[in-house]
Amino acid sequence: MVPQWIIEKKRDGHILTDEEIRFFINGFTAGTIPDYQMAAMAMAIYLKGMTPEETAVLTDAMMRSGAMVDTSAITKPKVDKHSTGGIGDKVSIILAPLAACAGLAVPMISGRGLGITGGTLDKLESIPGFNVNLSEKEFIATIQKCGFSMIGQTGEIAPADKKLYALRDVTGTVASIPLITGSIMCKKMAEGIDSLVLDVKWGAGAFMRTIEDATTLAQSMVRVGKAMNKGMVALITDMNQPLGRTAGNALEIIESMECLQGQHLDGDLMNITLALTAEMLLLGKKAATVEEARAILEKIIASGAAFDKFKEMAALHGTDVSALDDLSRLPRASIIHPFPAPTAGYISKVDAESIGRAVLVLGGGRQKTDDRIDYAVGTSGLVKIGESVQAAQPLVTIHANSQEKLAQALTHIEKAFAISAEPVTPPKPIVARITG
Amino acid sequence: MVPQWIIEKKRDGHILTDEEIRFFINGFTAGTIPDYQMAAMAMAIYLKGMTPEETAVLTDAMMRSGAMVDTSAITKPKVDKHSTGGIGDKVSIILAPLAACAGLAVPMISGRGLGITGGTLDKLESIPGFNVNLSEKEFIATIQKCGFSMIGQTGEIAPADKKLYALRDVTGTVASIPLITGSIMCKKMAEGIDSLVLDVKWGAGAFMRTIEDATTLAQSMVRVGKAMNKGMVALITDMNQPLGRTAGNALEIIESMECLQGQHLDGDLMNITLALTAEMLLLGKKAATVEEARAILEKIIASGAAFDKFKEMAALHGTDVSALDDLSRLPRASIIHPFPAPTAGYISKVDAESIGRAVLVLGGGRQKTDDRIDYAVGTSGLVKIGESVQAAQPLVTIHANSQEKLAQALTHIEKAFAISAEPVTPPKPIVARITG
Repeated sequence: MVPQWIIEKKRDGHILTDEEIRFFINGFTAGTIPDYQMAAMAMAIYLKGMTPEETAVLTDAMMRSGAMVDTSAITKPKVDKHSTGGIGDKVSIILAPLAACAGLAVPMISGRGLGITGGTLDKLESIPGFNVNLSEKEFIATIQKCGFSMIGQTGEIAPADKKLYALRDVTGTVASIPLITGSIMCKKMAEGIDSLVLDVKWGAGAFMRTIEDATTLAQSMVRVGKAMNKGMVALITDMNQPLGRTAGNALEIIESMECLQGQHLDGDLMNITLALTAEMLLLGKKAATVEEARAILEKIIASGAAFDKFKEMAALHGTDVSALDDLSRLPRASIIHPFPAPTAGYISKVDAESIGRAVLVLGGGRQKTDDRIDYAVGTSGLVKIGESVQAAQPLVTIHANSQEKLAQALTHIEKAFAISAEPVTPPKPIVARITG
Repeated sequence: MVPQWIIEKKRDGHILTDEEIRFFINGFTAGTIPDYQMAAMAMAIYLKGMTPEETAVLTDAMMRSGAMVDTSAITKPKVDKHSTGGIGDKVSIILAPLAACAGLAVPMISGRGLGITGGTLDKLESIPGFNVNLSEKEFIATIQKCGFSMIGQTGEIAPADKKLYALRDVTGTVASIPLITGSIMCKKMAEGIDSLVLDVKWGAGAFMRTIEDATTLAQSMVRVGKAMNKGMVALITDMNQPLGRTAGNALEIIESMECLQGQHLDGDLMNITLALTAEMLLLGKKAATVEEARAILEKIIASGAAFDKFKEMAALHGTDVSALDDLSRLPRASIIHPFPAPTAGYISKVDAESIGRAVLVLGGGRQKTDDRIDYAVGTSGLVKIGESVQAAQPLVTIHANSQEKLAQALTHIEKAFAISAEPVTPPKPIVARITG
């Protein structure tokens, strides 16, 4: 096979064969197909698309380019959740112990934050002693003991994706549904799971700006997962404002622990978390209906089992769990600065990107992959769209470790809010459920 | 400026600014924009196109990436011709001395052959002593003395094009009208000419397979040349069969010298050559109408001046011109093998590609850029579509220097012809004239 002939075939809008896709991905991984040929192919895929069948083969080829987790020793249904990413998204930290309590095995391999998007690994590492770098053997043993474990990559998972993602980033080929699908799904499929629930976010703070685009991506990922014989469902959820009331690593752990202990049940964060966890129970056959699943989960939270389960996992990851019983022992910032509402009224905008940029300049995120993170900083007590405020009431509280960074953060915070004289309807946290 | 933003702009079908195009081409030439970004850009250009204005800026940027010939010392109108390439195309060798006799300056910088397409430089080098490697100073001096000179590149003309062409070749982005236009025109514009006549070939032996595609390319090149303030015209000519009756270096020189001495005036080769030269005279204001131009050219041939002019130029390039008066002194092959017609009838097909492949395997062309050429080999006495033949009458005569290569050539020659029992109308040598 000749690489440029395969590029030309896709360029002309034709469907590639399994062999052609595998030849290209394998050659690219091995270095026999150079970056410039992959770049031309990525642009052809961007502009001409791929069928669900082509996308599934692309995903499978990228998955097989590296290490895959052997979960065969785990007998429980192995179900994971993946989110397309947003500001204040700490769902995984609440969802995984809940699902484990309900009898599922959750082999969760997460990433670090980059730019305005946070990462679950960074949030966990704000808990003193928490070790995300378990070996694969320790990972499996932890899941067998307590039903879940949350780690970073063990072996080199999907090196083809790593290489391709870096190339897409500099060649204008990021926002391609088949390429995004392949990139996300190859890594989740390498986890050795039976089923996957997807949280595909839409809105001003999400990669997908419209419900339609989010739905298209969700359908593509659900179809690819099903083609690879996995149980799949996706929820389309709101990211026009940050999720929950905190953003920043230790602050998000605090909010998550509160949720695990039964607080904030009416908020958007728990609304979405419980809906996603319920879908996991359905896929893992731990409940027959969404209603039954929600009843199981509410009972787990009320019993205190969910919080205990998280502490059990945290202890297996090296944490002195007394810090989770006394959350004041988590890293704390030196400056606590409330940002007051200029007028009374109804919150009509809480711009997720502005909040994300504020956390980033505070030092709570990474501009570059090797930046160090300040776990203590971020925002808390965030108002939500539709809530009413009095003049001078805080819209958000900024946690900073220097006056200079606080001032930088404020330039973003000032742009984040809008207040209306008229009542505002809050956005629906979940707008669609995609099953195929 | 950020390269990927410019890629994204073209990917989304927008028009690039002058600054964006120049930034990209200059960065690519300097190596600050890597191959993979150029490959993605080339695919975006392939699939989304470029306006004539964008194509003109692309051409200008590629032209300015390297050396340009300073022809300011030449006072006559500087007019050249460019062909998109075909089998048996020796037009330049006849046209250039004709145009020089008519009072034009022809600064002709040509290429070498690769694959089945021959090159003017190789044909000239089959004349003993002919030196195509003049310095720019010698080139200008030769043109000042005798009105024309035919050489290879002096400095490095358009290195951006050299780099981009190599990349397009392996990324499925060759057949793009704006990229082809830029590639051809940047090199011709670097010659320092006032006007350019284009011979855009269409048909089974040409890069452009249909009249429509050839017309689109011709229009694009004419518009770019005009945008760069050059006089421009293009003829769309037939390449469904080889041009003239010979293919192979020395054999084509023999046919060209015969033409310069007034033979073959009724054939397709002289039909096209005179039409192209007449257009040069119009652009150079040496004639007011095509009819007037043709009358001038016919008089030049009849007088013997055209052949004398070629010998004058050849002498200035180091040739002992007695070899041109006694053409038997050009390189000659040891095996002369006529290929007989299997039946009587009318020639309905003479496949240019098959003839080209035969010459290539005989050693008359290059498989790789560093292959050596056997100047003596090739084909002569080729029948043309529409001509009638008797059974066993030669359809073509093969000139070979080994029995093994003759046998290889015959496998191609056998596929080249078709003979019909019914009369066949010969193709029109010139199907369109494009002026904008």
